[in-house]
Amino acid sequence: MSDPGRSSSASATFVRVYFADTDLMGVVYNGVYLTWFEIGRTEFLRDRGLAYAEVERRGFSLPVTEASFVVRSPARYDDWIRIETCVDGIRSRGVTFRYRISRDDTLLVEGRTVHTPVSKQDLKGARLPDWLRERLL
Amino acid sequence: MSDPGRSSSASATFVRVYFADTDLMGVVYNGVYLTWFEIGRTEFLRDRGLAYAEVERRGFSLPVTEASFVVRSPARYDDWIRIETCVDGIRSRGVTFRYRISRDDTLLVEGRTVHTPVSKQDLKGARLPDWLRERLL
Amino acid sequence: MSDPGRSSSASATFVRVYFADTDLMGVVYNGVYLTWFEIGRTEFLRDRGLAYAEVERRGFSLPVTEASFVVRSPARYDDWIRIETCVDGIRSRGVTFRYRISRDDTLLVEGRTVHTPVSKQDLKGARLPDWLRERLL
Amino acid sequence: MSDPGRSSSASATFVRVYFADTDLMGVVYNGVYLTWFEIGRTEFLRDRGLAYAEVERRGFSLPVTEASFVVRSPARYDDWIRIETCVDGIRSRGVTFRYRISRDDTLLVEGRTVHTPVSKQDLKGARLPDWLRERLL
Repeated sequence: MSDPGRSSSASATFVRVYFADTDLMGVVYNGVYLTWFEIGRTEFLRDRGLAYAEVERRGFSLPVTEASFVVRSPARYDDWIRIETCVDGIRSRGVTFRYRISRDDTLLVEGRTVHTPVSKQDLKGARLPDWLRERLL
Repeated sequence: MSDPGRSSSASATFVRVYFADTDLMGVVYNGVYLTWFEIGRTEFLRDRGLAYAEVERRGFSLPVTEASFVVRSPARYDDWIRIETCVDGIRSRGVTFRYRISRDDTLLVEGRTVHTPVSKQDLKGARLPDWLRERLL
Repeated sequence: MSDPGRSSSASATFVRVYFADTDLMGVVYNGVYLTWFEIGRTEFLRDRGLAYAEVERRGFSLPVTEASFVVRSPARYDDWIRIETCVDGIRSRGVTFRYRISRDDTLLVEGRTVHTPVSKQDLKGARLPDWLRERLL
Repeated sequence: MSDPGRSSSASATFVRVYFADTDLMGVVYNGVYLTWFEIGRTEFLRDRGLAYAEVERRGFSLPVTEASFVVRSPARYDDWIRIETCVDGIRSRGVTFRYRISRDDTLLVEGRTVHTPVSKQDLKGARLPDWLRERLL
């Protein structure tokens, strides 16, 4: 029931950097990378025919329980940013996504989030349902 | 049942400006003023003995239906900001808050939000309950 | 040198609503509307062949000095949001943008921001340069 | 010139959770933890007599080059949150901060950020200046 190391093909989506994303240092504020990771995995799911809103309607949440990233070079105002997302490991009680943020051919940020399925009914940890597992691979 | 023009005494609370609040222009991003207005009115209610969380527990929301502000001078990184909040007009179907954002003796931003009470049960507009009205004046 | 009331044709751009934009009430947090207004006017300028980054490179800023909005109906998670932007009045010392935020045929939010040109050299108010004025009309 | 493993005593500061920090899931949005880490290390420095604004005035930046966190239990609306920060390892080219986010006696989030000193003059990596190193220990 566990496939650690199973990884999916990647999806790509794009965002523009606005003033709202930048800070006084003239670069994108580091907390914004977490928002981009959310955008990446949401569009990854949509590419596989599943709106995350549908996951919630079916009674499950996938909250972030771990996250990490490394900034190789900061994103800047008005950059057109590519977010590549793939699934890197699925277990019965967790999913790991990996992200690569880049501008043109320059890799800017690499990151990873771990999600633990929760049943919305009792807010307790749940097994990853099969219909969701199938979409992730 | 309507007291337009009834205005309350003011409450003051303070926030520090961090990088997260600033943008590339080196000043506070304008959307952050709306967050400061939320902080102002939440602490205004708490000063009157009512946590806004309690308003929600009793089945009411007070969503923002109108907002406006004028920036006289921008807030900057590391500023220690004073948020003064008062109620400026209560009607059976709405409350208006006014805000003054300042640093030391310098007025930076003036703003106003209008809120329409909503019953959480049916998500429809509701009369402002008496126990809430009393706290606001 | 003043054309109050001169208004432009509108540009439209689209954003998706993510968890990052929502709050506990289940709707988009009101401060996010200001970010959407920024996206609207930035893409309005880009449609007219001018990146706002270029305005800054030429030594001018257009900070928000006033803003207001009315929420007719809140935006929600996963909505595909249309932001329509037009210029509504240009003076030698200021520009007003107007925004209409909608989902399908439903108007959600109407807003307005006023901007005062500032010279980046001395951080003082400046006349709107002709090359910028031409793009706005 | 390197003291990996040298760790400091901790500073504590507090934040309140507002709607602006929450999302549709009813908990604090994960990107907000990065803002709390910034608040933690800024107040850590201030407790040692050094405003981070002063670091910047002296020509140095300390951008986040790595970050990670684990969420044991989510923070919620209106929580009064304790942010504990300490320095955990200083090298000539980097500083690591550690954070513990808690509500009352419940540990919610543990995190870590790594910062690489940059000279603002040439935007290149720089050695950590002695006056800054002394404050961190």
